[in-house]
Amino acid sequence: MKNFDFHNPTRLVFGEGTIENIGQYVKEYGDKKVLLLYGKGSIKRNGVYDTVVKSLKEAGIDYVEMSGVKPNPVLSKVRETVLLMKKEKVDAIVAVGGGSVLDTSKISAAAYYYDGDPWDFYEKKVKPERALPIYGVLTISATGSEMNSGGVITNEEEKKKWGWGSKYTYPRLSIVDPSVQKTLPKNQTVNGAVDTITHVLEEYFDGTKGTLMQDEFSEGIIRTTMVSVKKLIEDPEDYEARANLAWAATLALNGLNGLGRRGDWASHGIEHSVSAYYDIAHAEGLAMVMPAWMKHVYKEDVDKFARFGEKIFGIMEEDKEKAAVMAIEAYKRFLQEIGAPVSLSERNIGDEHLRAMAKNAMLRGPIGGLKKLHEEDVYEILKLAL
Amino acid sequence: MKNFDFHNPTRLVFGEGTIENIGQYVKEYGDKKVLLLYGKGSIKRNGVYDTVVKSLKEAGIDYVEMSGVKPNPVLSKVRETVLLMKKEKVDAIVAVGGGSVLDTSKISAAAYYYDGDPWDFYEKKVKPERALPIYGVLTISATGSEMNSGGVITNEEEKKKWGWGSKYTYPRLSIVDPSVQKTLPKNQTVNGAVDTITHVLEEYFDGTKGTLMQDEFSEGIIRTTMVSVKKLIEDPEDYEARANLAWAATLALNGLNGLGRRGDWASHGIEHSVSAYYDIAHAEGLAMVMPAWMKHVYKEDVDKFARFGEKIFGIMEEDKEKAAVMAIEAYKRFLQEIGAPVSLSERNIGDEHLRAMAKNAMLRGPIGGLKKLHEEDVYEILKLAL
Repeated sequence: MKNFDFHNPTRLVFGEGTIENIGQYVKEYGDKKVLLLYGKGSIKRNGVYDTVVKSLKEAGIDYVEMSGVKPNPVLSKVRETVLLMKKEKVDAIVAVGGGSVLDTSKISAAAYYYDGDPWDFYEKKVKPERALPIYGVLTISATGSEMNSGGVITNEEEKKKWGWGSKYTYPRLSIVDPSVQKTLPKNQTVNGAVDTITHVLEEYFDGTKGTLMQDEFSEGIIRTTMVSVKKLIEDPEDYEARANLAWAATLALNGLNGLGRRGDWASHGIEHSVSAYYDIAHAEGLAMVMPAWMKHVYKEDVDKFARFGEKIFGIMEEDKEKAAVMAIEAYKRFLQEIGAPVSLSERNIGDEHLRAMAKNAMLRGPIGGLKKLHEEDVYEILKLAL
Repeated sequence: MKNFDFHNPTRLVFGEGTIENIGQYVKEYGDKKVLLLYGKGSIKRNGVYDTVVKSLKEAGIDYVEMSGVKPNPVLSKVRETVLLMKKEKVDAIVAVGGGSVLDTSKISAAAYYYDGDPWDFYEKKVKPERALPIYGVLTISATGSEMNSGGVITNEEEKKKWGWGSKYTYPRLSIVDPSVQKTLPKNQTVNGAVDTITHVLEEYFDGTKGTLMQDEFSEGIIRTTMVSVKKLIEDPEDYEARANLAWAATLALNGLNGLGRRGDWASHGIEHSVSAYYDIAHAEGLAMVMPAWMKHVYKEDVDKFARFGEKIFGIMEEDKEKAAVMAIEAYKRFLQEIGAPVSLSERNIGDEHLRAMAKNAMLRGPIGGLKKLHEEDVYEILKLAL
């Protein structure tokens, strides 16, 4: 186990009926005028928008709106958001939506205090010294962004889909009400589950030894997610399954699962390059890329892949090498069972940009922790994913 | 799953060699003069005292000392500590030791800003509005006090051993260096493991339904603790086992495990009454009381006890009632295997004060979540524990 330094200051309010208190929470912390940031309108259909607006009004919180944040959120929207916030002089952001809205809020909160372009933070040209407070209201459990400091933004012009975060960009408070997720379409529920499991696996398969507590934690999150997503495919209104999936998704990326590990994150790196070229859902990209990544790297840690097979799929094969291969196949089958795509071709992606995507994944240098991946490795993985 | 509101602001620094930075951390947060609080001198034997003092001096932090905090920490020592802090006008407390020292630091930190008697907080006559910052340096993993807001203090005169905490008494930062625990005697390592497992079980067996994620988390902590303590009995210097046990102990009671549950805590309540009458180690009391509590209450949730048997001990018995009984026996056997006492008689406790202890457990009303326990229940449980 590696040494670690953990500090997650986000307050998490969880459960049915909690969103109606958002105004009170903002008031409790003394903020008077907020930016109400959201996506493309699903919160108007599921009633969350009305609940939030009513609550803000009742608490006497002034607000201005910015809508239209899209999945795989983009830099141009961040710039627009920051301009509006500067003009309106808000005290805080109320980010209502999924990971895209939360991710947009984080860079915007930091850029509020910066005169240059927000992308400078991603390029590490500048470091934040403060950020506006963020209040999250989560409407889809997937990215864990409600309880961490990170955000992924796509710079459309430069085809860069990168992650960034700072200790100032943890949401001050996030509300997770699983009951508002009852109306999500099946594919979004499935995507949330795949995102959750992938976050866990990016830390689980990193080669660090002596992390039994973390491994147990990881496996618990994965099993909970698998059981819950299957229940939700049967019955999207199952509150307990929604609640367990939601809590698993938050735990998967609030920092705990990665403690004492170095992490790998190569599959995310590769997926970001794929979705810099193709407008696919992030989780779909992960479902396509990760099994291919597994096949490419499993020999670096056969025992861990065998353990994964045993603890998650009950594979008791004694030959570790065989067990590892069986585990990867079982994971792929699970993804297929829940309706996730496991090859690029399922989203009509052919081999035309493989080389460019492989190069794109190297923009910030080689990636990966379990195995350091260079352009050729990524190219091979993408071919395996075809 | 029940709704919850979680906010744990403690920063946790974990790993070998981290204690030598304590002075820098205190300085980073701007504190200049601290109370150095510790126990009966084990930190002088294992070198931690020297490391802390050297680090404070190098960082230019002024300090005064208060030593002599004993296991099952007492109110008289809290009073003495608060008097010294008021006289010396310290900015913060550096609490070096185990749960007793940390627990003493919490009530002292709050009482620093209060003119009356510290016990008033425990009696709920007064609520804190602030507290001195606490920096923890943990030397034995057991209570989880390094990353929560609570503390148990014994009022010797009134024979009350009670818990208390507030949102102001989370340590600002705690350092956990598992390597300093290599020199702990076997019984203290075992006690830490029993304390950890009991904390988990007090939330696990509470009757709340729909908590799969929490159950998986609980079971992971328990299995990790069981594996690690057995390794440490074989080899007390096994760093990875120390690290896993330490991290499990922190996770067991930093709040996460109890989220979405109501909790039970009856075994703690009963143990507190036992150790208000007999000077036994807290964990020994828990090892004696909890299996008896299990026997008394398991029919309230046979399925959960059967699940416990399956997930922890691999018991696959189909008859749930039988499986539950087998699980309780297996848990008792595990405690015996690691050398924990499982009956009061093993610590020369007879039936002379059973009634008085049962009454004592009722001082703040009936206890328990899975089953509400009245005086007669506690009396029966104590008889079962004989």
